[in-house]
Amino acid sequence: MARQVTAFSNATVKRLRSLRDKKARRAEGLFLAEGLRIIAEARDSGRLPEIIAFSAESTRHPLAAEIIAATEAAGGEAIETSADILAKMSGKDNPQMLLGAYRQPETGLERLDRAASPLWIVAQALRDPGNIGTILRTGDAVGAGGLILVDDCADAFSVEAVRASMGAIFTQQVATARWPEFLAWLRTDEGQLVGTSLNATDDYLVARYHQPCFLLIGNEQQGLPPDYEAECDLLVKIPMAGRADSLNAAVAAAVMAFAIKASWRQEGS
Amino acid sequence: MARQVTAFSNATVKRLRSLRDKKARRAEGLFLAEGLRIIAEARDSGRLPEIIAFSAESTRHPLAAEIIAATEAAGGEAIETSADILAKMSGKDNPQMLLGAYRQPETGLERLDRAASPLWIVAQALRDPGNIGTILRTGDAVGAGGLILVDDCADAFSVEAVRASMGAIFTQQVATARWPEFLAWLRTDEGQLVGTSLNATDDYLVARYHQPCFLLIGNEQQGLPPDYEAECDLLVKIPMAGRADSLNAAVAAAVMAFAIKASWRQEGS
Repeated sequence: MARQVTAFSNATVKRLRSLRDKKARRAEGLFLAEGLRIIAEARDSGRLPEIIAFSAESTRHPLAAEIIAATEAAGGEAIETSADILAKMSGKDNPQMLLGAYRQPETGLERLDRAASPLWIVAQALRDPGNIGTILRTGDAVGAGGLILVDDCADAFSVEAVRASMGAIFTQQVATARWPEFLAWLRTDEGQLVGTSLNATDDYLVARYHQPCFLLIGNEQQGLPPDYEAECDLLVKIPMAGRADSLNAAVAAAVMAFAIKASWRQEGS
Repeated sequence: MARQVTAFSNATVKRLRSLRDKKARRAEGLFLAEGLRIIAEARDSGRLPEIIAFSAESTRHPLAAEIIAATEAAGGEAIETSADILAKMSGKDNPQMLLGAYRQPETGLERLDRAASPLWIVAQALRDPGNIGTILRTGDAVGAGGLILVDDCADAFSVEAVRASMGAIFTQQVATARWPEFLAWLRTDEGQLVGTSLNATDDYLVARYHQPCFLLIGNEQQGLPPDYEAECDLLVKIPMAGRADSLNAAVAAAVMAFAIKASWRQEGS
């Protein structure tokens, strides 16, 4: 049976709330996901939270009630609490009425199943957690294997990234690595490293993309460092008609990922 | 000569700070843009702020100094102030050292120059100002004429949207309208209204896009209402490989806009 919790000072409330902080996430090995849509997505991917917090109101929804029951049946902790306390935990004025803490997976490159997909997205020093989450969501939509975060990126398990991923954090594999480590891993097997660059001459619509393809997206402000560009097997250019000559990083990732998929469809592969 | 301002209670400081609020923007007819990159983009598009606020440090940058001088020469107000006060005005802990208040253009449909571009983006009930700004930035990149905001959208002149637009707020035309008003305007001349829908059968890569094309993007949660879809001249589907069957609205806008441009390049138009 779910416990009723009405105190902000309750240990579980404090623990869930702490997960908004990266250090606490690392120490606990847990991360937060909010809202029925994302929590249902997780369940459909075979993932249940270790802790679930919910409002009395949310239990009226059959799917929410089912996930709460399944969480408890699996030995997880369930607490029923107030909208105020849920708001405190999620850091939002209009909080979701359901919130789960999930075991954070290991993010070593060696855990990735390269055969899972012909397309992988690699983000380099991406600082905006919303961009990370949006790229995960796009990765799910194009059937990418996952997202490899190179150098100092925002945390894919932050509340903001999980929210923007709309559940893709549970369907996409996530790895983190330094650049030399990533390159060494990449070169242990076949794989085309594709970067976008304003200096490239190959048009992104004309270039040939091989499988597996590793699409490399650079930092929001600086783009890719020149020595990272030099390591790419293919550098392509997205023609720009405008003044600013730049795209949002998550938009660039999506335009490229869909173009790569489109080229493979045309080849009938 | 720029005035030195050191008090939070200064009238210009208060006025600039008020522009974070939509009602104040409407009352004043002004909006805020932050940072040298965006303010330089504005200048390159022939726009100077009516008020410019800056730190002593920022005047060491020749381009910033030039824009401050040009603003004063054009009869604008310039105030030199502290990092603390700039932070208060921008609402950010790490504020930009340069901040401008610009005259907000009229946003009536009748002011749009339809001949300016073969591609326009239309957003319906888009609630996230970051998405609005990102779509403006994408519109600039693909050479769209501008963005038409239909129904209750987030404000394109909010600080968040202007920031995400990376200056495209100064290069893209912006209009706002209710749906019936937009439809009436659209049908006064040629124009293909294109929507994306999970119910569509036409693949987005195979469909034929006419010029001028009006790309309609629906609300982040609900997508397009069925009766809005019914008004479209063409409904296309972006095939989804993943579980979630959805894309971020700004990502969907970009994937579609680049696909439309690509189809026109293939036709050689």
